[in-house]
Amino acid sequence: MVPALDMWERPPFEPWIRDGWMYGRGAADMKAGLASNLFAIEALKHLGLRPAADAFFQSVVEEECAGNGALACLQRGYRADAALIPEPFGEKLVSSQVGVLWFQVRLKGLPTHVAYAGSGANAIEAAIPVFEALHKLEHRMNAPERRYHDHAGHNHALNLNIGKMKGGDWTSSVPAWCVFDVRMGLFPGQELGEMRRAIENAIHEAVRSQPFLAKNRPEIIYNGFAAEGYSLADDARPAAREARAALARAHTLVAGEPLRTEAITATTDDRFFGLYADTPALVYGPRAEAIHGLDERVYLDSVRHVTQSTALFIADWCGLEEA
Amino acid sequence: MVPALDMWERPPFEPWIRDGWMYGRGAADMKAGLASNLFAIEALKHLGLRPAADAFFQSVVEEECAGNGALACLQRGYRADAALIPEPFGEKLVSSQVGVLWFQVRLKGLPTHVAYAGSGANAIEAAIPVFEALHKLEHRMNAPERRYHDHAGHNHALNLNIGKMKGGDWTSSVPAWCVFDVRMGLFPGQELGEMRRAIENAIHEAVRSQPFLAKNRPEIIYNGFAAEGYSLADDARPAAREARAALARAHTLVAGEPLRTEAITATTDDRFFGLYADTPALVYGPRAEAIHGLDERVYLDSVRHVTQSTALFIADWCGLEEA
Repeated sequence: MVPALDMWERPPFEPWIRDGWMYGRGAADMKAGLASNLFAIEALKHLGLRPAADAFFQSVVEEECAGNGALACLQRGYRADAALIPEPFGEKLVSSQVGVLWFQVRLKGLPTHVAYAGSGANAIEAAIPVFEALHKLEHRMNAPERRYHDHAGHNHALNLNIGKMKGGDWTSSVPAWCVFDVRMGLFPGQELGEMRRAIENAIHEAVRSQPFLAKNRPEIIYNGFAAEGYSLADDARPAAREARAALARAHTLVAGEPLRTEAITATTDDRFFGLYADTPALVYGPRAEAIHGLDERVYLDSVRHVTQSTALFIADWCGLEEA
Repeated sequence: MVPALDMWERPPFEPWIRDGWMYGRGAADMKAGLASNLFAIEALKHLGLRPAADAFFQSVVEEECAGNGALACLQRGYRADAALIPEPFGEKLVSSQVGVLWFQVRLKGLPTHVAYAGSGANAIEAAIPVFEALHKLEHRMNAPERRYHDHAGHNHALNLNIGKMKGGDWTSSVPAWCVFDVRMGLFPGQELGEMRRAIENAIHEAVRSQPFLAKNRPEIIYNGFAAEGYSLADDARPAAREARAALARAHTLVAGEPLRTEAITATTDDRFFGLYADTPALVYGPRAEAIHGLDERVYLDSVRHVTQSTALFIADWCGLEEA
């Protein structure tokens, strides 16, 4: 889901190309990566070859809001020795990724005629100290001594985002309700339950001095993402090491330089494979800009590189046979 | 429009009576007053009498959000020597009322993937300094030296209310937009245009330090109320003086004590009659609590008093003849 489609330079669902970049809604995240997967299999076919082992192509839903699509694949019994997820991280291998928690906060207010606004409790404005408390928590969580070692170079790996808000029914009444939706990151190894408790404490602490809310406590609902962090780099299982090495060989052959790695500040579906299915998952895809934003774009040469690396990785990992 | 109907003690559209109070949505504002108008005419009829001059009963729409219903009556040519508006202000005559301005503020943000939240501009959180600036303006406008003399006893006659807010499309994107609706009061004699300029200056000043909003200026839309203040007490026309005196006589007879007056912090439709139609409008109605709020109620004995005063006022102002 990308907002503000009317703020694009050109209509977001009519792709266009400029200076080697393809623009369009979802062009980079993640049509380009999925296309490069398909192109790689197609390229082998054009050479009269096919993988000598099973290769599944799975294009899943919900990658952006829960990961339930990838989870459903695993739940249906699909298994592999390795997975490749072509998220657009600039031809780098994702070494570690953060976890993501979504939650909704519901605040009540005391509605009253605005002529006597002082006697009411404004549910919209009551959110302001809660935002502040959540950002303070975000700040604490990003402190150098709390960082996951692979994220040590990120000053602010864990982002807290107030993403949606709605409140009040009528301009001349003190609003009786307000709801807002928040996304918070967490490091690999950090427990979801621990983060939930920290969030709840911050929120309840923030409203303690508001007489109405102290009695009508905020409701906190966990919806969507409940994703733990994951580190492929720290996955010491042999399959993980072998998969990383195979992709590194393929990439080096195509790019003429070693495969670089990156600890990212978003989550991807690879946590399911790595944490719950004993399957190393390599996140490796093309170079993109402004994903989820205005004028999202992908660099087409990079899509070619990733296609080539992917074909070589399949050849290496599965072996090839005549089609 | 009253919000949060599920927060009432009992279902708001099933009226109930306790300790002489009738509870229900709109029971006080303003079904009770309108009922007392009808009861007064009915009471005269039961006595075999009727007003010796034309008496119009008009129940108008939009009283709470624009006043266009009353304005439409005048625009269609209805005229009177005096008007009586039974707003529930505790059997007191409204001596002066504030004006009300509604406006909507639209803020843009720079959407981006939350993994890079620092590079975006959160449209929801951008509202916080705007709220603050508006409340500072509210504070300045209520300063003792700015008060209308009839409102001098009110420490806070002009209320600014953030009544509604909405923003963002998706939890994991930095929100690209936010819209909120505001109600602001103004004193009799204060110009709407002057207040609009003060509001616009406050908003633009508040966002000047936000790089994205400084370039993408907030949009300010005036919708609904654009009501000037009005003072019946300072209306020196003879008809105004005579109407006040007639109501005072009627009330004193019923209540056994003089008619008290009140400068109110809300607006009513009487501004149209007083300012634009050369018609003194008396705002006088029953005793109420929690109008626009939870468990709105009207005191039934007070509805009886107002009915009696109204019948006597009609008798005095119009004279009576046999039906």
